[in-house]
Amino acid sequence: MNLILLDPADLTTGGLARVSDPRRLRHLREVHRATPGDRLTVGVRDGRWGTARLATLDTQAALFSELVLDRPPPPPLPVHLVLALPRPRMLARTLEHVTALGVKQITLLHTRRVEKSYWQSPELAPAKIHDHLVLGLEQARDTVLPTLSCEPRFKPFVEDRLPGLLAGKQGLLAHPGMDEACPRGIHRPSVLLVGPEGGFIAYEVECLLAAGCQGIHLGERILRVETAVTALLARLG
Amino acid sequence: MNLILLDPADLTTGGLARVSDPRRLRHLREVHRATPGDRLTVGVRDGRWGTARLATLDTQAALFSELVLDRPPPPPLPVHLVLALPRPRMLARTLEHVTALGVKQITLLHTRRVEKSYWQSPELAPAKIHDHLVLGLEQARDTVLPTLSCEPRFKPFVEDRLPGLLAGKQGLLAHPGMDEACPRGIHRPSVLLVGPEGGFIAYEVECLLAAGCQGIHLGERILRVETAVTALLARLG
Repeated sequence: MNLILLDPADLTTGGLARVSDPRRLRHLREVHRATPGDRLTVGVRDGRWGTARLATLDTQAALFSELVLDRPPPPPLPVHLVLALPRPRMLARTLEHVTALGVKQITLLHTRRVEKSYWQSPELAPAKIHDHLVLGLEQARDTVLPTLSCEPRFKPFVEDRLPGLLAGKQGLLAHPGMDEACPRGIHRPSVLLVGPEGGFIAYEVECLLAAGCQGIHLGERILRVETAVTALLARLG
Repeated sequence: MNLILLDPADLTTGGLARVSDPRRLRHLREVHRATPGDRLTVGVRDGRWGTARLATLDTQAALFSELVLDRPPPPPLPVHLVLALPRPRMLARTLEHVTALGVKQITLLHTRRVEKSYWQSPELAPAKIHDHLVLGLEQARDTVLPTLSCEPRFKPFVEDRLPGLLAGKQGLLAHPGMDEACPRGIHRPSVLLVGPEGGFIAYEVECLLAAGCQGIHLGERILRVETAVTALLARLG
C-alpha cells in the first residue's frame, strides 16, 4: 500500500479524514506500522493525492489531519481491456496488475474456452472486485477507480456492444499467429481483447476481426494470460 | 504445458523417447488427457521441438514414437536479469514469467531490503528452481534452460562480478525516479537490474550507477516486482 485511498465520504468538515474499515486499519498498523504523528501518503478516490498527518489511531478508527492533496493521479493508460474471464485465482491477481498499470475500463467476457463455473465464483462479487481494484490503485499511487463490466455472452457482446466501444478507438485482438506485432507506445485510445488460457476459438477470432479489430501478436512464445496481459499493456503503454 | 520437455537422456536408441517422472506423467494424464495414438508437442532440452506420437502410457512411463523435431526454439531475449531475491511465493511465479518471456541468464541478488530469511527458503533448492524454469519453458514452447546463480552479498557482486557481466553489454538499472524511460525493443545485449519490494536503497543505486549502469524508469506508477519485471522485459523485448 504505497498510498492510503480515502473515500470522499471519509473527509470530514474541518479538513480531517476518518478511516474506520478493518482492512485499512489493519494495513496502517501491520504494514505501515504507523504511529500518531507520522506523515503518510494518502489520496482521495477519483481526486488528488499527497500527504496527511496521522493524528490518532485506535482499534475503531484512524484520524488524519493536515491533508496536503496537491498532486494529480498518474495518467491513465488509454486502453479498454476486454478480457476473457480468467479462473478465479488468476482473476484477482490480474485485476490488481492491470489496475496498477493504469487501465480504467475493464470488461470480463465469456468465450468458448472459459469454464462456465467461473461465472459463479465468489471472486466476482462486486465487493471483492472493488477490493482488488483498490489494491491496484494503492500499489500504483493512483486514485481513479476503473469501471468494470461483465459480458457473460459472447455473441451479444460482439454484435450489440463492441461496435459502440470501438467508436473512435482502434480494436486490438491479441492472439498467437496474427499478422502484426503488438504496437509500441500507442497514444490512440484502444480496445485490447485478450482470450482465455487456450485462446479464442477460430470462430471468435473471425467474429472479432469482422467487427473491425486488428489482430496482433507478442511473438512465438505462448504466455499465460496473466503474463500476456501485463506484457501487452507494457508494450502499448 | 504447451510442450512436453524431454531430457536428452529420455531419448532411447531407435528414435523413441521415454518419460517416467511423476510430474510429466501426471500432466499427460490430467492436463493433456492424452491417450495412446495422440500426436503431442514435444521438445528436447537445449534442442529442437516438434511433435511425437504417444505410443504407450501407464502409471510407470510414457513412450513416444515418430519424433519429428524440426523447429528451433524461439529466439531468446538478450537480457541478463539481475533480480533482488523476491519473497519465496513471488520467486516461484517470477521465475516462470521471466523464463516464459525468454530470459536465459538470471542472477538472484541480496540487497538491503531483501529479508535475510528468504535465502533459507526451500524454494531456492536447485530442484525447485529447476522445476519453475522448466514450467516456464513448457509454457512458452521453449527448450533452452536458463542458467541461474545466487549472489547473497551485494558489494562483492557489484565490485567483483558486475564488471565482467557488463563487458559488451549495457547495464540498465530499473528504479523509480531515474532520468530515462525504459527503452523499447532493444537488440543490444543488456543486463537489467531490478530491486526488491521497497526498491534499492540510495547507496545501492549510487554503486550501480558508478559501476556504469544507466538508470531507467517505467513511469510514475509504483509496481509490484512481479508486474514490473514482466513489464520491463516486455518493453525491452
